[in-house]
This record gives sequence, structure tokens and C-alpha cells, in this order.
Amino acid sequence: MMRLLQLRTMASAAGTKKIEFFYDIFSPYTWFAFEVLMRYKKHWNIDLELKPFLLAAVAKEAGNTAPMLVPNKAFYMGKDLVRCAKYFKVPLKMVENPHELVLVKGSIIPNRFLIATDLLYPQYLEPLSRALWMEVWNKDEDFTQIEILSRAGLTCGMNQEELSRVLEHMTHQETKDRLKAHSKQALEYRAFGSPSIVAHVGGKPMLFFGSDRFPVLAQEIGEKWLGPDPDDPEPKL
Amino acid sequence: MMRLLQLRTMASAAGTKKIEFFYDIFSPYTWFAFEVLMRYKKHWNIDLELKPFLLAAVAKEAGNTAPMLVPNKAFYMGKDLVRCAKYFKVPLKMVENPHELVLVKGSIIPNRFLIATDLLYPQYLEPLSRALWMEVWNKDEDFTQIEILSRAGLTCGMNQEELSRVLEHMTHQETKDRLKAHSKQALEYRAFGSPSIVAHVGGKPMLFFGSDRFPVLAQEIGEKWLGPDPDDPEPKL
Repeated sequence: MMRLLQLRTMASAAGTKKIEFFYDIFSPYTWFAFEVLMRYKKHWNIDLELKPFLLAAVAKEAGNTAPMLVPNKAFYMGKDLVRCAKYFKVPLKMVENPHELVLVKGSIIPNRFLIATDLLYPQYLEPLSRALWMEVWNKDEDFTQIEILSRAGLTCGMNQEELSRVLEHMTHQETKDRLKAHSKQALEYRAFGSPSIVAHVGGKPMLFFGSDRFPVLAQEIGEKWLGPDPDDPEPKL
Repeated sequence: MMRLLQLRTMASAAGTKKIEFFYDIFSPYTWFAFEVLMRYKKHWNIDLELKPFLLAAVAKEAGNTAPMLVPNKAFYMGKDLVRCAKYFKVPLKMVENPHELVLVKGSIIPNRFLIATDLLYPQYLEPLSRALWMEVWNKDEDFTQIEILSRAGLTCGMNQEELSRVLEHMTHQETKDRLKAHSKQALEYRAFGSPSIVAHVGGKPMLFFGSDRFPVLAQEIGEKWLGPDPDDPEPKL
């Protein structure tokens, strides 16, 4: 533990920048931002913390309304998401009924599944987030159903016993409290939507909203932006 | 005239893509998008049409609300605009009272000034747009005042006689109608905010909203994105 702390302090001294990624997997643009940060983890000198939060709670508290309630915006999103999916190289497909997804189903159940996983088996948080996005924003499955959560869990490597423990832990107070705490932290940074990316540079938190501020984020943390896929031999800037 | 038409047809056959830029100069993000397109005019095979429109009318018709009415969004915009100004290399400074600018002053007066200019002396539309942005989003001047409009007009090369004619033409029916027509056209493309960039490729209009979709716009029209300043010897991608 002491050694780990020492290593962390050294890394921090060498300029590692902490980035908190507040995200709700029912937001499609958030998937783009998630994959970009996952690709840049090994290119940028950053220490990334994944923090699932409840967008509905944050938006309500901030007084923000869902963009899809404005018909022209909803229509635009349908076109924009498809073009952005190509640009970001993320296999997103439009769901049949985005209104039902966002306004009826909500995301409290998959969020608790993510938080319970993070509490018990944090090594699965990244692949599980991706697996849940695949279920909802690629296969148009209902991620409020236990069988879909279970399939996502098994896909990312959980065994049956781990899966059972996670499912059972979803309703524990610790899980509910952690989800609330993440939403509250995001609001303290004055978030209003998902993703909310908080970069800590020089001891000061800087909020970036959305999947379209990476060139500006790179500028502010002193790293190089090479387009959405830094491993592409011919980066599509 | 015949020769001009032929040249246009040839250019179009060679793949020139028409881009309509619907813009309201009281939107600060729109300034970034304007300057980027002006820089790319000579790099991309595009035929750019500048169309001042009335954002308030478009937003109202589309049922969209001003982002600054959500306090956390307004706070965010204050930070985001400064960082983006640096990224886009546009000399934007925050105005003291953005609420007064957007919710009280509005932009119908400078918009009519732009439209009247475009009707009488279209060669001034580009520099005049920039001069008005400088007045409001750099010097924090009140662009609903005739003396500020006049200064912007003279700055961009109008002589006193031209200026007088433009000021007089602001209240003509032709000017009012053209401004309304631009707003209506934008709404027909299902716009909801400023800027609304409509690219015509293969006879199909594609709407792009905002100053943060240029890499995606480039992808869709088959041009290369080199960052906000394509003339920078070391592009800040």
C-alpha cells in the first residue's frame, strides 16, 4: 500500500492529470467520449476515474431538459449520431424508440449494475460499460431487464458466481449511496449533462461537457489531439 | 452572364459543394464557425452562401430555449467560450451582461443592417459580419445603436454615402422580407439554433449545428479537416 502511494505520488509529480469521467450509459454521445478516452489512456499522461452517474437526477437538479423534447433537435440527433458514429468509429445504431428509452425506462437499473460491479469487481467496470452500450445502442435491447444485464456481465468475463453477487448487490444501500454520491459530485462541478469530464490541472477542476471538446481538453491539459483514434496509422483528424 | 452560368455549371460538375451558413451574430459560438469556414473557403471545394437569420425567431418556432437560462450551462459557457476562443484563434472576450444582450437587446437591428448591406453592397457582408462580432463579442459595445453599426460599416470599407444608403434601407420591406425568408429557409431544413450549416451533397441537404462538427462535416463532404486554422504551419488539430 505504501509502495502504491509512493508510486502514485511520483506519477503525480511527473505531471499525471486526474480526469473524472461522469457518465450515463443511456446517453449515446457519451459512448463516443468513453471510447475516445479509453483509446487515449495510454497516449496521454492521465489518471482516468470512471464514475457512472444518473443523468436524469443531474439534469433535473440543474434545470436542464432532454434535447429530444425539441422535435427539430430530436430529428437532428438521429442524423448527427449516425455521422458521428462513423467519425468516432463506434458501432452505434439508432434505437427504434429513443423516447421510451430516455423518458420511460430510464437508466437507474443499469447504473446500479455498474456501481455494484465497481464496488465488488472494479476490473470489469470498463468492459461492462462497453457491453451495456452494445446492448442498448447497438442491439436495441432493454437494459433494464436482468437477462440483458446478465448477458453483458458474462460477455465481459464475469463468472456465474460473480454475476450473482453483483446482481444481489444492486439493491444494497452502499450501491445506491455511491450512485447518488457520483451524481452529487458532478453537480458540485456544476454539471448539467452527460458526459461531464472533469480535468484537474494545477489543482483546479475544469469541466468539459460532451464528446466534442477533446481538442480543447487536449489544449488545456497540454496533451496532443490526434483525432478520435490515436492508433489509426492515418489519423482522421 | 451566360459565361458566368457556364463557369458555375462547370465548377458544380467538378464537385463544388454548396454550403449555406445561417448565422446570427449575437451567438458567440457562431463567430468561431464563421471564421473557420472563411479560412477553409480557399482550401475546400465549396461555394459558401452567407445567410444572416434571426435566431430568436428560429428558436421560438422550433421550441428551443436559450442555454443561458440553465444556470449551470450559463456558467459553463463562460469558461468554455474562453477556452474555445483560444482553440479557434478568434479574439472573443466575454461580455459583461450576456443576459441583457440575448434576452433584452436581441439582434434584429444588426441583422437588418447585415441584410440591407447584402442587398445593396454584397461585397461588404463578410467583413461587416466580422466587424459587428468585434463590436459585440470583443469590445462589448451595443450593436443595436446606430453609431456602433456605422462604425462597423466604415471599418469594413463603406464610404459615407454607402453607409447612409444601407442605414436607410434597413427599414425597407425588402430587407425585412429577406431576413424572414432566411429564418424560414433554416426552419425548412429543421434548424433549431445558430449556426445552422447546410451542406448540399448529391442533391441532398445535410444540416450541421454548431461550431464543433467540422471534422464530421469534412467527412461527409469528402474534404480534409486540418484543425481550426488550415494555414497554420503546425496545425493545432
